[in-house]
Formats: sequence, C-alpha cells, structure tokens
Amino acid sequence: MRDASDDGSYDLVLALGAGGLGDEGFTVAREGGTTTVTASGGRGLLYGLFHVVRLGEAAFTGAWALRTHRPALALRMLDHWDNVAVHPVMGQVERGYAGGSLFWDDGRARGDVERVRAYGRLLAACGINAVAVNNVNVHETEAHLLTDRIGEVALLADALRPYGIRTHLSVTFAAPVVLGGTATADPLDGAVRGWWSEATRRVYEAIPDFGGYVVKADSEGQPGPFAYGRSHADGANMLAAVLEPYGGTVHWRAFVYNHRQDWRDRTTDRARAAYDHFVPLDGAFAGNAVLQVKHGPMDFQVREPVSPLIGAMPRTRPAVELQVTQEYTGQQRHVCWLGPMWSEVLRFRPEDTSVGGLARGGLVAVSNVGDDPFWTGHPLAQANLYTFGRLAWRPDAEPGEVLDEWIGLTFPDAPARLADGLHAVLDGSWRSYEKYTAPLGVGFMVQPGHHYGPSVDGYEYSPWGTYHFADRDGIGVDRSVATGTGYAGQYGKPWSELYESPDTCPDELLLFFHHVPYGHVLKSGKTVIQHIYDTHFEGVEEVEEARAVWASLSGLMDPARHARVAERYEEQLRCAREWRDQVNSYFLRKSGVADARGRLIHL
Amino acid sequence: MRDASDDGSYDLVLALGAGGLGDEGFTVAREGGTTTVTASGGRGLLYGLFHVVRLGEAAFTGAWALRTHRPALALRMLDHWDNVAVHPVMGQVERGYAGGSLFWDDGRARGDVERVRAYGRLLAACGINAVAVNNVNVHETEAHLLTDRIGEVALLADALRPYGIRTHLSVTFAAPVVLGGTATADPLDGAVRGWWSEATRRVYEAIPDFGGYVVKADSEGQPGPFAYGRSHADGANMLAAVLEPYGGTVHWRAFVYNHRQDWRDRTTDRARAAYDHFVPLDGAFAGNAVLQVKHGPMDFQVREPVSPLIGAMPRTRPAVELQVTQEYTGQQRHVCWLGPMWSEVLRFRPEDTSVGGLARGGLVAVSNVGDDPFWTGHPLAQANLYTFGRLAWRPDAEPGEVLDEWIGLTFPDAPARLADGLHAVLDGSWRSYEKYTAPLGVGFMVQPGHHYGPSVDGYEYSPWGTYHFADRDGIGVDRSVATGTGYAGQYGKPWSELYESPDTCPDELLLFFHHVPYGHVLKSGKTVIQHIYDTHFEGVEEVEEARAVWASLSGLMDPARHARVAERYEEQLRCAREWRDQVNSYFLRKSGVADARGRLIHL
Repeated sequence: MRDASDDGSYDLVLALGAGGLGDEGFTVAREGGTTTVTASGGRGLLYGLFHVVRLGEAAFTGAWALRTHRPALALRMLDHWDNVAVHPVMGQVERGYAGGSLFWDDGRARGDVERVRAYGRLLAACGINAVAVNNVNVHETEAHLLTDRIGEVALLADALRPYGIRTHLSVTFAAPVVLGGTATADPLDGAVRGWWSEATRRVYEAIPDFGGYVVKADSEGQPGPFAYGRSHADGANMLAAVLEPYGGTVHWRAFVYNHRQDWRDRTTDRARAAYDHFVPLDGAFAGNAVLQVKHGPMDFQVREPVSPLIGAMPRTRPAVELQVTQEYTGQQRHVCWLGPMWSEVLRFRPEDTSVGGLARGGLVAVSNVGDDPFWTGHPLAQANLYTFGRLAWRPDAEPGEVLDEWIGLTFPDAPARLADGLHAVLDGSWRSYEKYTAPLGVGFMVQPGHHYGPSVDGYEYSPWGTYHFADRDGIGVDRSVATGTGYAGQYGKPWSELYESPDTCPDELLLFFHHVPYGHVLKSGKTVIQHIYDTHFEGVEEVEEARAVWASLSGLMDPARHARVAERYEEQLRCAREWRDQVNSYFLRKSGVADARGRLIHL
Repeated sequence: MRDASDDGSYDLVLALGAGGLGDEGFTVAREGGTTTVTASGGRGLLYGLFHVVRLGEAAFTGAWALRTHRPALALRMLDHWDNVAVHPVMGQVERGYAGGSLFWDDGRARGDVERVRAYGRLLAACGINAVAVNNVNVHETEAHLLTDRIGEVALLADALRPYGIRTHLSVTFAAPVVLGGTATADPLDGAVRGWWSEATRRVYEAIPDFGGYVVKADSEGQPGPFAYGRSHADGANMLAAVLEPYGGTVHWRAFVYNHRQDWRDRTTDRARAAYDHFVPLDGAFAGNAVLQVKHGPMDFQVREPVSPLIGAMPRTRPAVELQVTQEYTGQQRHVCWLGPMWSEVLRFRPEDTSVGGLARGGLVAVSNVGDDPFWTGHPLAQANLYTFGRLAWRPDAEPGEVLDEWIGLTFPDAPARLADGLHAVLDGSWRSYEKYTAPLGVGFMVQPGHHYGPSVDGYEYSPWGTYHFADRDGIGVDRSVATGTGYAGQYGKPWSELYESPDTCPDELLLFFHHVPYGHVLKSGKTVIQHIYDTHFEGVEEVEEARAVWASLSGLMDPARHARVAERYEEQLRCAREWRDQVNSYFLRKSGVADARGRLIHL
C-alpha cells in the first residue's frame, strides 16, 4: 500500500484517500499501466483488493476510468447456529451439514485460530462483514459466553477483525436469571437493566468493536419479554440501550409464533404470526435495534411468498434473514443453488418499501460452513455462501453472473467445458429441487425433526402450524381474506389483490394461498394433479441429467472434489426418486386421478 | 421348614419330600389345623409359600385334600432390554418406561443388590424363573459383560439365585471378533468355536447355574451367521454346543426380516419373514436351542394374529415372546392390561401343535420394570408383570381371575368398591386401547422412532414393512393366497381357510389379512369406515369413564399412588383424543364418507 501521490510505477496501487464512500466503499481505476484502488481505510482497501482478484487479468489490461463501488447494505451478516456443547438432538451445529463447528468442539473453544483466520478471509472475499458465533437457541453452556467465557469470543473476534468482520453473540433473554441470579428478566426492571449494562461493559472491555447481540425470544421455547407482560419492543430496546454507548446493535428475531398450535383449528395461521406480532410495534424500536425477519412467513421452504412484514414497518430497521445452510433444501447432499430464489426475494417490492428500507437493516443468513475440508460439506454449496455475500453487497446483481464469478474464482483457468458444466448443474438446481419436493408453494412434507427426505403427512397433524390439508378432493391452505385466514390481506396492493384470488395468484404459490380441487387448471394449462405428477418426474430427470453432466467433468478438476460431488449426486438421486414416488403415490391414492401420460406411479 | 413326619402342631409346614413334581412343583394340603406345603427342594417350597400367600386366610381355614401344583411351562423368562451404557437414542432401557435400569447406570453396574434381591422376590411371587440382564441389541459396552465384566453379571446372579431365578446374558454374535480379535465370527470356524467354548467356560466359572445366551442375530442390523453364508441353525447350534456341557440354553430370536424393504414392492411381506426363514430349519436345531418367536408376525401390536411359526416347527423348541413393556400399547402412560390378549395367544391352537409343544420352549417377555418407585412407572402396569408370570405358570388360567388375584395381593384388605373399581378400569383397558388406535388389526399408525401417539402415515412409506395401504377407496393389506402375499397360507387348517376370505376372517383381523373398500360390511353389521369412527369415539369415552372411576377411588389407597395414576389418566385421555381426531380426520379426508351419527370430525 502506498500514498496516492506516488508515481505509478507499480501494477497495483492500494491508496488511502477517497472520501464519501463510507468505510467499505472503494474506487478502482487503471491508467498508465497501473491499477489503483482507493478507499478511506483498511476495510475499503480490502474489498477493493478482492475486487481486483475477481477481475483477474482484466484488472491489469488496458485503461479505464474510475469506477466506484460501495455496498448497498451496511450489514452483511452470517449467523452460526453452532453449539458450544454438543446438543443431544441437534449436535455440534444445529442444522449444520458441513462437519463440526469452526469455533467450538464438544464444550470448548477449538483454538484453531488459523482456520478461523482463513474463514475470515473467505468471508471478506464474499463481502460479509459480521458474524454471530453461536446458535440463536442458547443452551446452558452457551449462555456463559456472555460472561465468564467472553474471552473465548474475544479470541474469535481478534482472528476475524483483520478481515473487516465484527463479531456478535447470541444471548438468552433469561441471562440475568441464568447467569446473574436475579429473580426476574423483566426488561423494565432496574436490576435487570443494570445486570445487562454491566455485562455489556465487560463484553466491550474484551471486544472493543463487538457488533452486538442476537436474540431469539419467545420463540420455540426460548424465554422472552412475554413472560413479564412486556412487548418485544420493550425487550429489544432494553438491550439496545445498554449497547448504544458502544455502538452496538441488537438483532431481534421476528420468528415468533405459536409452535403448540392445534391442527384442528383452521383459523390460526402461523404465516400471519410475525406480522401480527410486530407491525403494531412499528416505530417503537430503538435506532440500534434491528428486526431480523425470515424472508418468508414460514421457515425457509424452497418456495414461500416474501414475508409481508419486511415492507410493513417503515419506521423500523428490518434485516432479511436467509438460510444458506440447506436445512429444507437438501442439506448439502443435494445441489441446490439458491441464488435465483434470494434474488427474487430481494427484488420483491412490497407497496411501501424500497431498497433503502431494506438496507437500513441489512441481510443476514444462517451459515453453511463447518470444519469440513470443503468448508460446506458439498463442494458446490460454496456457491450459496458466495452468492449470499455478493447479493448482500449488491441485491440487484444478476445471480447468474454471480454464479459465473464464483465458478471463475473457485476453478481458476477452467476450460469452457468445465465452466459451462458447473453453470449447468448449479443454475437450474433450485427449480429442480422445487419440482421433486413439495408442490406449488405448499411447503413442508418433510420428515419431522431432521427435515431430510419426504413425509407428505409428516407435519400434517402436528402442533407446528405447517399443514397442506390435502383430502380426496383437493389440497392447499386458504389464506384469502374472503374465505380463509386473511393472510393475503397483510400485503399492500397489488400483492394483496393478486394473492387473494386463485385466478390471479402465481402458480408457484397457489397452494400456499388457496385450497383448490385437484382438477383446478393452472396458468400453465395443466391441472394441479397433473402438475404434481409432471414436476416430480421432471425433477428426477433433471437430477439424472445433472449427474451425467457432472460425470462428464471427471478429469477436469481435483479428483477428490469430483468424487465428493459424484458421491453426493448418488444420494441426491436416490432421495429425489423417493420424493417423486412418495408424493406421486400419496396423491394418486388420495385423488384417484391417473397420470395422463401413463407413467409408473406405485399404488 | 420341618421333616414331613413331624406331628402337625404348626399352622404352616414347609416340607421336603414329594417326588415326581420336578424341582418347581409342590403340593398343598390342610389337615388338623396345619397347612402343609411339600416339594422336592427349595424352589418348589418357595413357589408353595407364595401360593399360600395368594390364598391368604383361606390357606388356614377348614381342611382340604392334597392339591398338586406344577408349572405348565418350564421356562418363564423376562428379557431386560437394559443397556449398560446409555444409548444416544434408546437411553438406559430400550423401550423402558419405568425410569432407569435396576441393574445398570450410565455405563456401570448399579451395585444396589438390595433392590435386585427385592426384584427377585417380586419375580418369584409372579412365578418367573429366568432373567436376561441386558438388551438383545448388544452395543459395544454391553459386549464386555460376556468376558471381562462377567463379574458384574455374577453379582446379579447371586442376588437373584435365592429366588429360583437363573441369569441369562444377551450376547452379540460378533463377540469373537469384537472381544477376541478373531478374523471371523463364522460359526463353523474352529477358532470361533474355540473362543466361544473358552468364554463360556469362564462364564460358568463365575456363574455355575448360568442360564444361557440370548441372541438377536441378522436382525435390524445386528450381526449373524448370514454374513458367513451359514444358517441360523448353524449359528444357534454352535452356541448350543458350547453351552451344553454346563446345562445352558441358547435363546435364538426368530425376529429376522428385511428392515430395508421397499414400500413400493407389495410382494414382500414382513409378516411372512420369520416363517419363511425358520420353518425350513425345523429339526436342525440342537436340543438346548430355543427358538424365541414373537407372539405375532409383526411387532407387538395391540392386535395381531398369532404367529404361524409357533405351531409350524414340531421338531423345534419354540418359546413365545410377549412384550410386557408397553412399547406399542401406551408406554405405561396408558392403562392397558394385556392379560386378555396374551390369553388369546396362549389358547390359540394351530393345527399341528399342542400345549406340550409350547411348553418345551417356554414363555418369554420383555420386562416393564425399572428403578421407578412403583417398579413399572404406571402403578397399574404391575398387573401386566404379574399376569405374565401367572400365565407362564398356567397358560389356560382365566385372565380375569389372575387380575383379581393381583388386585387382592397388591391392595390387601381392599374394600369391595376399590377392588371392583380396579377390576373395572383394568379389565377392558386393552380393548379400549385397541379402539382408539389402529383399527381392525392393521397395526402401526404410530409416531416413528419412539412409537408413542398417532401418525397414520408415519410408517406408510418407510423401509420397515409396516403398511396399511389406505387410499381413497379402501384400506388393508391383502395377505391372502389367492390375490395377496400368501401369508394366510402359512397357517394350518382351519385358520388358513378362515383367514383367506374377508367373509370368514374375524373382524378384528380383517385389515391385517385383506384390503377392503370403506363400505365393506363387517360381521358386526357396520361398514369399515363407520366402525373406524365409532370405535374411535367409543375408545375415548371409555377412557373418560375409567378416569372417572379412578377419581372415585381417591381416599381408598395411598395418596401418592392414586395421584400417579390420576396424572397418567390425564395424559392417556389427551393422547386418546389425539388418536381419535387424527384417525377420524385422516379417514374422513381420504374416504369422503361422513359419520352416520354426525359427530364432530375435523376436516
């Protein structure tokens, strides 16, 4: 790095100086054989350097005028659902499919700082600038990270800091009771606030640039302000107040719903819950409180409408939460590149919001990284991590271009056949996965608990609020205002009107919004039942084709990497066939309607 | 105890002397104010003494001629599915619902010999004379009981011996490999046989009256002779040979089936498996090998036909295996007294068998006892333990009389209102349970894994071979010879003919043997669908009535015991309602047939 006034006898110059781009923006220009990156500080230069790496040879060719780059979203965060102690059911990493945790091992910090540093570099290359180092479900061992084990978090923060990454901690709302022995965790109680204030002071003593707290409160059994008759704004603001002097932020998750629902009661709708809970609180949250909202109203299904909450709180800082770890999308045994789905979410414009609204909060995702040699278990799942980071930087990026960027960086000097093959197997993989799993936006139909593989009725009579209501005549959830749960009315126009009627509702979300007969004709011209059969046969065929493409790439890359993916394709194909056969048999048995094309559906 | 020639100035005389009754039989007589029990040794006198206890005051009233008692079955055994080390999924006791194990605690022997002695006394009072002290699924820790940890088994054997109980051990067929480091566990290999021979010699050094080995081989992932191209007779006989010099027995379980079945393949029938595997081996098993056969062809469902294997191997010693622990029958949270079911099994007469045939092997059950203060978790589940023991002694006993015996012994001096109430809540409980769970013998419909609570399709598309094949038109498994899997043909006449046709098949087994339309009219005059609705409403009503009877018994017993049962009735009722509603909704959605009586069935 040199001062910008030097003479230009270098190929690459990283220069301090440019103002007005914030601490992450940078400019790049090339003139007189020198490529110059300019930024106001180290973080901007770091991103500029990775930009040059992405450009590759093009960065050092010809001459071009100054270009300015800055992230659209200030917060680009990964939440690790890593447990410190191995959870008896969820294991070391909740919903983790990439081996163990990078940070924790059976109750202790791993102490492998080199790997954490390498991870920081990887994240910086993707554009990610914040990490939460433990699971939002905070169990007993993990609670202590906030107090007597903050030193272990500080070591992680030290390793990540050089890569522009601020460290966050998931905390339990009951921490004052659990750790401090107070009688209550009431957010309006002076002693509680005092306890948090002192705990936070010590956190910042250990980690001066600590990012803040992530809180899952009153959700799936986690403690929260409801126990004390307080609102979620009361809860979040108490933590925001103790973080404020240090520049910290509280990330308050909006994933609040009744997980002990009665399946007999069709008036309760889990999809409504986040909106119903939080919209009345718009304007009540502190400026350094971020409301972290899952991108859909349910739970990271392969297809959901965009959560109406995101656009419905103009006086709140919402962050959109994505799931890079493939809990419901093949668990890194299936290729399922989620770029197109996330891009649809990020381009969705509810009536009253704008890019600016989204950017105030940021983009957060659940990490898919572990201690696996390939980082993400499935080598191709790295594309999801990279795409997430790049979309967080630039939400309107073309996902296909980001994919090619990842291919170029991960397989440098790849011949066209390899690059094309990688693009082919990844680009359509999300739609293939959608085809062979739950149809037309109805969701779930997964094995309860671990969420891998099909079980059409697996959640149908459960307390989780995730139903499809299939009977012998039809299927789907009526969420219309006129005759259903009213969820469609949580959107602004034109969406509320579009979703309200099965005639205007997009095909891919039809069963999310409507209960229709199997003979209902989609915009595609097919009946619902024939669509189910066709997509399930097609989805499997597409996996077979992708597997063949992959086989043809043998010899064009490291054999271990090729073998790992090839092996996972076998499992993906087995599982896709299981999905196809279970879903088709289930609906044939129930509807009695034969496949129009006479293919084999087991009775 | 005195010599039989003494003068009779005692109320009770236990005398050695009677011959020809075996070592467990005894006589009782009363003359001149003295009740005299005579037997050939300690075990007979022990049973005689408990007989006197059962008689109560009647034992010391009037005068009566000599009566002879001896067990119909020589082997009356309880298998404990207790793990030494806590299994990550199955816990300390596999399918245990009564707290921890009496024998093991988190990897070690409990060392509570007093409790084991008390347990021995309890079992002797029930008439049980053999116990296997560890799970048939033998994991790594448990394998060592056979060798370096045999001393811990010997301590249990020492505690149980005074109560006439011989101790058995479940062993892994792979023991020579796992423990001895041999290259193979091939039963025809000389070194393997040598290893077993030496191991067995050491076992008998530690436990001179050791009962023998229990083996689950080639079943649900356990190792077995199939790996070496050997038959189950080869496997069993090798172990029989090494046990033979010491008078030991090998208990070889017939629970062999393909647990990775393809649900798409309707020609494979798990119900056929035990018969198909073992009948060709009739006559090939050694004299001290017992083939342990589950009472039904599937897995301890609330209603199954009697296994055709039991009567089909006249030259083999079969033992019938029951499940006292309530895996599929309410897990000791529901009252489900199984006496009537077991009595039906024991009275069933396949064409070519007799009581004598059954008695050669004996009766074995999976224990329902743990370290719970009430022994069996649910205090009323003790009735199952007692009834099992008494039916093993006398398979043709009237179960209702055995029940009253248990009531009298467990609640001595109970007023008639209490005794009647206990009888009322227990006597019909099995049929109530059957009513609100899976209908007409079709079985399963339980939550996968833990097997508690309803999930109609829970096993429908699984590899476990346990299907109901419900579609919009009908339900059931066609196991006829003419059009189905042929399972009905495994029975001798008249059963094969009776089961072959839906017209003659008993209602309660109809869906086990036949796939019929929902409109099929049962012998009861009801359609299948109306039967499903009616029994599910009735089953819940019967639980409500039983709960009310139980409430009325408050004050007539120890409050802690009353409260424990009352609390479990709440859970039973909640769960029974869940069964009713899920089953009824499932079939209403699928069949479209409304309840003839217009009761509430949720859509």
